[in-house]
Amino acid sequence: MLKPLSKNRLKFYQKLNQKKYRDQEKLYLISGLRAVQSALENDKDNCIELIFEESKEELLLNLETSLVKQQSTVSSKDFKSLSDEKSPQGICLVAKKPTTDFELNKIKNGPILFLDRISDPGNLGTIIRSAAWFGIGAVLLSPGSADPFQPKVVRASVGAINVVQIFEEVGIRKLEQIKSQKDFSFFATDVSGGTELSSTKFNKTTLLMFGSEAHGLANEYKNLADSKLLIKKIGNGESLNVANAAAIIMYQATINK
Amino acid sequence: MLKPLSKNRLKFYQKLNQKKYRDQEKLYLISGLRAVQSALENDKDNCIELIFEESKEELLLNLETSLVKQQSTVSSKDFKSLSDEKSPQGICLVAKKPTTDFELNKIKNGPILFLDRISDPGNLGTIIRSAAWFGIGAVLLSPGSADPFQPKVVRASVGAINVVQIFEEVGIRKLEQIKSQKDFSFFATDVSGGTELSSTKFNKTTLLMFGSEAHGLANEYKNLADSKLLIKKIGNGESLNVANAAAIIMYQATINK
Repeated sequence: MLKPLSKNRLKFYQKLNQKKYRDQEKLYLISGLRAVQSALENDKDNCIELIFEESKEELLLNLETSLVKQQSTVSSKDFKSLSDEKSPQGICLVAKKPTTDFELNKIKNGPILFLDRISDPGNLGTIIRSAAWFGIGAVLLSPGSADPFQPKVVRASVGAINVVQIFEEVGIRKLEQIKSQKDFSFFATDVSGGTELSSTKFNKTTLLMFGSEAHGLANEYKNLADSKLLIKKIGNGESLNVANAAAIIMYQATINK
Repeated sequence: MLKPLSKNRLKFYQKLNQKKYRDQEKLYLISGLRAVQSALENDKDNCIELIFEESKEELLLNLETSLVKQQSTVSSKDFKSLSDEKSPQGICLVAKKPTTDFELNKIKNGPILFLDRISDPGNLGTIIRSAAWFGIGAVLLSPGSADPFQPKVVRASVGAINVVQIFEEVGIRKLEQIKSQKDFSFFATDVSGGTELSSTKFNKTTLLMFGSEAHGLANEYKNLADSKLLIKKIGNGESLNVANAAAIIMYQATINK
């Protein structure tokens, strides 16, 4: 039998839906079975408390719950107050937020990604998910990007948020450090022209830059690029979704390295 | 000066947010500037009426409005009633819905896609968008898929819904016809194993099958596959988003053909 969550702790956890409190408490919420499973498998030391919606305790059967000391239940109504979803699955995990402060020495193997102002949480989460699949060394987020620990990004990443090394607030100075001190080659994606992706060679010191669909890549970043990449258009489409373009380029950059 | 839309027509167009009325009236709504631009460029004969939110008429400047005879304005409140978005851009187009009845003779060049019960509208729209970019000959949707003309799919496709040939209600019998009478080779994507994507050869009679993330590809379809495809996992990720996987495979299938 699980214990009910106290009103005080419920209130405390509800606040984690706001960035201010996530930053202050260094905690965030992971909702949904697959994402919780992934966190338990990949990042168990940072798992703080499992919360189940009462009557959904059968979800326990799918989990190695022994990995988390604290476990509790809440009513359906209270569970909804923890989630921004219309129909949450009924399981969520409170986890320690890793530090996302940039450190040059933590940049080891490439390819790595730099994302300029990707503010759509679905796109950001999906890119992080693909980055985990392709073994991307780090995801660097420019100022003005979505918070990677907000619930929608965490959900779209389906657990990958626990797998990939993420740095926030990476601007032009830090990029210049990576270029000069780590000797990375920078590739910018550009629909207007560039080398065709399929004939480009990549290696372990490759940095791939992507801008948002709304703003593109800012000029100051674009000017740092050594090469421009083009995904050849074969049909009559007008554009590609940025997460899809990033997935294609990660695929090619990891098989061509 | 644009004329205001009559109450009766507003009511009539509001109903197009429901599948029943879209099917009955053979019309659908396209919301947002980029998608409307794409429809005017690629499918002008099917554009029926442009509707602007009053005060947003500056959007007219971005459009070849002469291509559409009927144009009208509505209040902000009425515009919202036409859209399922929280903050719609203020421009929408009523368009004729093309027929999506399957005809074997309309299947010409591949690669073509078969999607089994993709019910997430964002994923379906994004796949259609990539299909337009890569010149995919047709997108076949199984019974139980999302309606491709619902507003969220149309929006995620960013205009590509007007570019790609789409067939609905394609089940096992129709797939068998394509295989036997058109001599297509069927490829199923499978995370559990298969030939690595990068070493697979494709051609103009390739059909690529994808299942939803929730249900995978149904066995009856999987049994039709000549080969299984695998996108090699390099990192510690658990899965790829289906629209991203489809984009990667479309990319590879169109450069390797």
